[in-house]
Amino acid sequence: MLKKITVAVDAMGGDNSPLKVINGINHHFQTNKNIFYKIFGNNEEIKKILPTTLPETCFEIIHTNEKVKGTDSPLSAARGKDTSMWLAIDSVKKKDADIVISAGNTGALFVIAKLNLKMIENIDKPALAGLWPNQNGTNIVLDLGASIDCSEKNLVDFSIMGSALFKALFPTEDPKVAILNIGSEEIKGHEIIKKAYEVLNSSNNFNFKFNGYIEGNQIMDGLSNVIITDGFTGNVALKTAEGTANFITKELKKTMTGNLFGKISSLINIKNINNFKKRFDPRLYNGAILLGLDSPVVKSHGYTDYIGFSNSLKMCEKIVSGNLIEKIKQSID
Amino acid sequence: MLKKITVAVDAMGGDNSPLKVINGINHHFQTNKNIFYKIFGNNEEIKKILPTTLPETCFEIIHTNEKVKGTDSPLSAARGKDTSMWLAIDSVKKKDADIVISAGNTGALFVIAKLNLKMIENIDKPALAGLWPNQNGTNIVLDLGASIDCSEKNLVDFSIMGSALFKALFPTEDPKVAILNIGSEEIKGHEIIKKAYEVLNSSNNFNFKFNGYIEGNQIMDGLSNVIITDGFTGNVALKTAEGTANFITKELKKTMTGNLFGKISSLINIKNINNFKKRFDPRLYNGAILLGLDSPVVKSHGYTDYIGFSNSLKMCEKIVSGNLIEKIKQSID
Repeated sequence: MLKKITVAVDAMGGDNSPLKVINGINHHFQTNKNIFYKIFGNNEEIKKILPTTLPETCFEIIHTNEKVKGTDSPLSAARGKDTSMWLAIDSVKKKDADIVISAGNTGALFVIAKLNLKMIENIDKPALAGLWPNQNGTNIVLDLGASIDCSEKNLVDFSIMGSALFKALFPTEDPKVAILNIGSEEIKGHEIIKKAYEVLNSSNNFNFKFNGYIEGNQIMDGLSNVIITDGFTGNVALKTAEGTANFITKELKKTMTGNLFGKISSLINIKNINNFKKRFDPRLYNGAILLGLDSPVVKSHGYTDYIGFSNSLKMCEKIVSGNLIEKIKQSID
Repeated sequence: MLKKITVAVDAMGGDNSPLKVINGINHHFQTNKNIFYKIFGNNEEIKKILPTTLPETCFEIIHTNEKVKGTDSPLSAARGKDTSMWLAIDSVKKKDADIVISAGNTGALFVIAKLNLKMIENIDKPALAGLWPNQNGTNIVLDLGASIDCSEKNLVDFSIMGSALFKALFPTEDPKVAILNIGSEEIKGHEIIKKAYEVLNSSNNFNFKFNGYIEGNQIMDGLSNVIITDGFTGNVALKTAEGTANFITKELKKTMTGNLFGKISSLINIKNINNFKKRFDPRLYNGAILLGLDSPVVKSHGYTDYIGFSNSLKMCEKIVSGNLIEKIKQSID
């Protein structure tokens, strides 16, 4: 039997917690028995909602009265050393857990993780990596906002870390890296981007294929699957894509069901509509990974539900069983 | 009667030119008689396709054998002084025309325009401004790629120029400016953005309302209508939005018509589908304006058709009759 994976779970972060976190754990456990959940949060609140389908041997509750609120500033949150978030991170620091996950305050999670966990040797800046659908499957995009200003070395490091993450999550596929730019010609873009391009283009020692530059409209074409950019640009791109997707589906829904013909036609087409919704369900892409630290830290969306949280737990499992941190260390050397 | 507006038209740029340009002029002329078209291009080619509905009194052909190709580098294109693009720009320089429009090579258009036309006093960098649909109407977004690195002064200038353009295009609405950032709190983002925020937030002397920061997912919510960003971020955001919109509509179409139920339902709903297509027809948003030069330069998409080109001509008309350049000069002072 495989060694059990221990996940440190901040049960108190995000909307509708701890209920969605506990239900997410229960949902995840039904298909994954090889995990032990260290649950950090309010004992009383959690015990009240524990499902009977979750055996006591698969989890442990570490009680804490304190939690980081969504409205806390990262720095004020980092002052409290007995919040569920701090203690969950502390447990991976002490090697009591293999990975930590929270659906709470993103800024606080970054600051507390950076305060407690060491950076991997030779990596200077962390990156937040997220999943993004493309025509053939899924992209990893990084950085989504952890490091606003990036040097060429940071971008090269992001390529290495992003490829290692891609390999851990999709072991049967090959990572193909591209740098997000405003043109595909070598002369386009910032100096920093051009220098990163040169480094990535001039060596065959990387564990990925380098596809050069892509533009924003090529992120989803599936030709590259690890997309590299600085944290400012990546965050704007991700949120612009989310905004555009919401805008179109909302407007389309209004138009399509705005009159009787629309309503009838939507009824006939309900199965196709549901298939579409299923394929692009944001819960499938829930979970971003803070890379660069010597323990893996996973951020679930605050507004996701228990199914989204369960999907992030699946991601945790793949990251640990795929030996992500070891893979990054080997590639950086 | 109003003074006639003279538009210098590069007839040879973009896909399927000069046919789409001449048909675009003809289409535009049918609803706008107050315009004179100075058409720069190959006399013989143009004469062959001139529609009989276009009276000879409303245009003039200035013959040239040369044209800028889509594949020319901007610098090599700028060496040819008798291309249709160069001569069209030269005619606004000489005040023989009020505005110039081209559907040709974007990089070449920028370089030739910057070589020939002066910057407006006190404006250091140009910006490319484009139209973007939002929930209540239309946004102006700038810069979309003319100036990759921007100072806080550049961003403030973009706010002034973008608002003046908004007023020229939508005279009954009020410009509401926002800076694109990765969070709405004052502490988020680059130093340059924060300084621009301070300037815009501390003065009541601007001819627009300042709404602070917005994130990528708020671009289309309609609360702000002049969105300010540097040329790198703006270009990535625009193309990511285009890519996302294309991806969703393509995938949705595949899902919705992939089987018999889908096909029947699409037939029933054809009117709604067509209304949706009409509202977000990219041809409605065709035309970007290079701001900062002391004459207006309009770039039509290369791949648009004659209706899209005709819409850009409408934009030219509004820019000239709305006294855009004068408005910018007054606001900058």
